[in-house]
Amino acid sequence: MAVEEKHLPVEELKESIEREDLEGVKKLIAPLHPTDVAAVLKGLEGPQVTWVFRLLKKDVASAVLLELDDRMRELLVASVSSGELAQLVGEMESDDATDIVGELPLAEANEVLAGIDKEDARKVQKLLAYPEDTAGGKMQAELVSVRETATVREAIEEVRRKSKEIDNISNVFVVDSEGRFSGSVALNKLILAEEDGPIKGITDTKAVKVTTDVDQEQVAKMFQRYDLLNMPVVDKNGRLVGRITIDDIVDVIEEEISEDFYRVASLNIGERVLDSAGRSFGMRAPWLLINLATAFIAAAVVKVFESTIGRLVILAVFMPIVAGMGGNAATQTIAVVVRGLALGELPPNSARKVLIKEVLVGLANGILTGIVAMGVSYILGANPMVGLLLFLAMMANLVIAGFSGTIIPLALKWWGADPALASSIFVTTCTDVGGFLSFLGLAAVFMRAGIL
Amino acid sequence: MAVEEKHLPVEELKESIEREDLEGVKKLIAPLHPTDVAAVLKGLEGPQVTWVFRLLKKDVASAVLLELDDRMRELLVASVSSGELAQLVGEMESDDATDIVGELPLAEANEVLAGIDKEDARKVQKLLAYPEDTAGGKMQAELVSVRETATVREAIEEVRRKSKEIDNISNVFVVDSEGRFSGSVALNKLILAEEDGPIKGITDTKAVKVTTDVDQEQVAKMFQRYDLLNMPVVDKNGRLVGRITIDDIVDVIEEEISEDFYRVASLNIGERVLDSAGRSFGMRAPWLLINLATAFIAAAVVKVFESTIGRLVILAVFMPIVAGMGGNAATQTIAVVVRGLALGELPPNSARKVLIKEVLVGLANGILTGIVAMGVSYILGANPMVGLLLFLAMMANLVIAGFSGTIIPLALKWWGADPALASSIFVTTCTDVGGFLSFLGLAAVFMRAGIL
Repeated sequence: MAVEEKHLPVEELKESIEREDLEGVKKLIAPLHPTDVAAVLKGLEGPQVTWVFRLLKKDVASAVLLELDDRMRELLVASVSSGELAQLVGEMESDDATDIVGELPLAEANEVLAGIDKEDARKVQKLLAYPEDTAGGKMQAELVSVRETATVREAIEEVRRKSKEIDNISNVFVVDSEGRFSGSVALNKLILAEEDGPIKGITDTKAVKVTTDVDQEQVAKMFQRYDLLNMPVVDKNGRLVGRITIDDIVDVIEEEISEDFYRVASLNIGERVLDSAGRSFGMRAPWLLINLATAFIAAAVVKVFESTIGRLVILAVFMPIVAGMGGNAATQTIAVVVRGLALGELPPNSARKVLIKEVLVGLANGILTGIVAMGVSYILGANPMVGLLLFLAMMANLVIAGFSGTIIPLALKWWGADPALASSIFVTTCTDVGGFLSFLGLAAVFMRAGIL
Repeated sequence: MAVEEKHLPVEELKESIEREDLEGVKKLIAPLHPTDVAAVLKGLEGPQVTWVFRLLKKDVASAVLLELDDRMRELLVASVSSGELAQLVGEMESDDATDIVGELPLAEANEVLAGIDKEDARKVQKLLAYPEDTAGGKMQAELVSVRETATVREAIEEVRRKSKEIDNISNVFVVDSEGRFSGSVALNKLILAEEDGPIKGITDTKAVKVTTDVDQEQVAKMFQRYDLLNMPVVDKNGRLVGRITIDDIVDVIEEEISEDFYRVASLNIGERVLDSAGRSFGMRAPWLLINLATAFIAAAVVKVFESTIGRLVILAVFMPIVAGMGGNAATQTIAVVVRGLALGELPPNSARKVLIKEVLVGLANGILTGIVAMGVSYILGANPMVGLLLFLAMMANLVIAGFSGTIIPLALKWWGADPALASSIFVTTCTDVGGFLSFLGLAAVFMRAGIL
């Protein structure tokens, strides 16, 4: 597999920095893409980072700032003056500028806005009004639009004019006399068309649009569903106010799936692998304390059967198997249901169908693994009645796993909560309690019946 | 939140189908986007699906086929003749056509290829040679390219010519006299340029390219890293053979994260929420059997301490808490490490740093949850020495969780395996064994020392 991993000159750079060799550093940095400069900076120590950052050209520094993670960006933003920051922000597109300015304390934000072009500042101020995870928060104000009455030539002229300041133009949007969005023209259609013809003749009036308040996850789904490269954003009166491009959406898609993944693992969605131990401890401890509370609930069930275990200690040997297998099966069910909900694969009236299916899968896997467990315990010399117990309890607990693993994420969704959030904690409580209760409860019944 | 969920006329359609009202069905389908037609088909029964599918226009049917899930597509492909299928495949772009033809039995694949345009068939046959999850497997052969010696006007002419058959043109690729890729020109740069000027003057010669054998995950990372909309694909001699567009990459990104998510939950990556119970059972059972084997390993540890438990049954009540908390902490660690590896956030020499950090987080959380558990057990009336045991064992097991949760995914990665694959099974085996061994082992030591 010929992966083309670029060599990043981190070590060479460190040496040049230690020699305070300004020219050497500049020469190493110059051929790099801003994304790679950001990657190189991540390998340096705090003071080195700010030192190198100050050597970058304005446009490069501006692009690098956007590629860094939150904490390094905060570090660098704090290390420059409002005036310098205004110069960097001035180089950015409005959506990126808004992200940077939105993170600043109000006083500094105002200083930066005062330092950039008036028109740009106005755009940023408008964008700041939208919540970050909505279409309004993701859109940029830079776009190419023409009136419905324009000709193809006028539209091409407009693309030419805007090309100087906007990078990724792939569409011209068409608006009516009130500024309301009426359609979209792809750039290649524009090139193809008769220059003197009306733009109306080649406008796609069915083009998908969103209003500013639509959630980013929904926007991402529309992009995927209709294979879009960009999407016009309109206000509640239908007026064109911005556009969202696919490169911003790629990050949203990644973010949304990562969130589900993290939530099922009981993690704070903000945590990163290189966070400090203290920060990670603080983010994970609350989840573990909730887990501890549920573990005591399961222990309370075992406590009820203390005398049963006292009479037959081998029960203590096998009971974790029943609880653990339930937990494993439940994790499988939760992952499938949570992904299915996220992908929109579950039609509204399919809950019963999925529930029945998961219970059946639990039953089938319970029978299979139960038989295997019974056989293995027999080979290991356990009482055959204990083997039977193991089989029955495992079957019961894998049904509990299928049932609770489906019903709990679906219930969270119905209540308007995130189906991934805390699902695994609730469900493994069910399978722990269910596992101990079925295994030890049945054992107590067997004992009373005199067959154990 | 004003989510614009389109109303899909599933019920109306069912009624029209039952009345065998051909015109009614056509009228309901006509205004729908192919993606939405596919969604509507998913709500119908088998025979209804093929009946409606046959009513669709060729170009719509072709697009719908690509939007369906694997099994519905197989159903429909099986329901049409090779000649009809050739007509549908003839409407597709080469990468999509390759996906469909690649799934057919060889004889039928050849019939379909014989039924489409010769030039198209040649393209498909070439693409079939590349593994599906590589740049070659993801690319399409349709693209716009000109020689280095061309003028801007000639390039625009070429775009016009190709626009009739290719939908999403956003770049013109430039090649040398041998067909080797030498650079790329964005469409808006082309519109902006002087028509009589040479294309060379506006060509971006630093444009990122990949060779056909690069893994799709790596391609996706490059798209994200450099915010690309499309990427040229070259053979090992540098000759331009295709291009990958971002809409194909969006699916790759989603697929790759979903894979990690599924693997950590011990699931087969092909499973979907609406799969049949039989299919799900078959895919999950092997994982559960592996889990069962590891559960018996943990049980064997408990077995060693049977007499210890026999002397003090309360140990059986608390031991699942120690094992369970270790499992929870380990899942957190695995998720963070696996995501970090996937996002490329872990520099090659950071393994030691992450390992130390995760052990420290485990220690801190072990002390915190251990103290709480000790307190709760005391309140519940347990022997204070058992509480102390609980504290010590929990501290030890959360350290084990941090250590094994880091080292196992990293080791799998070093060995060239997927770090998400089976990580959770190995790690929870460590925490189960570690939990029982530390808790019961310490109990045995305490007993021998006469303090319990």
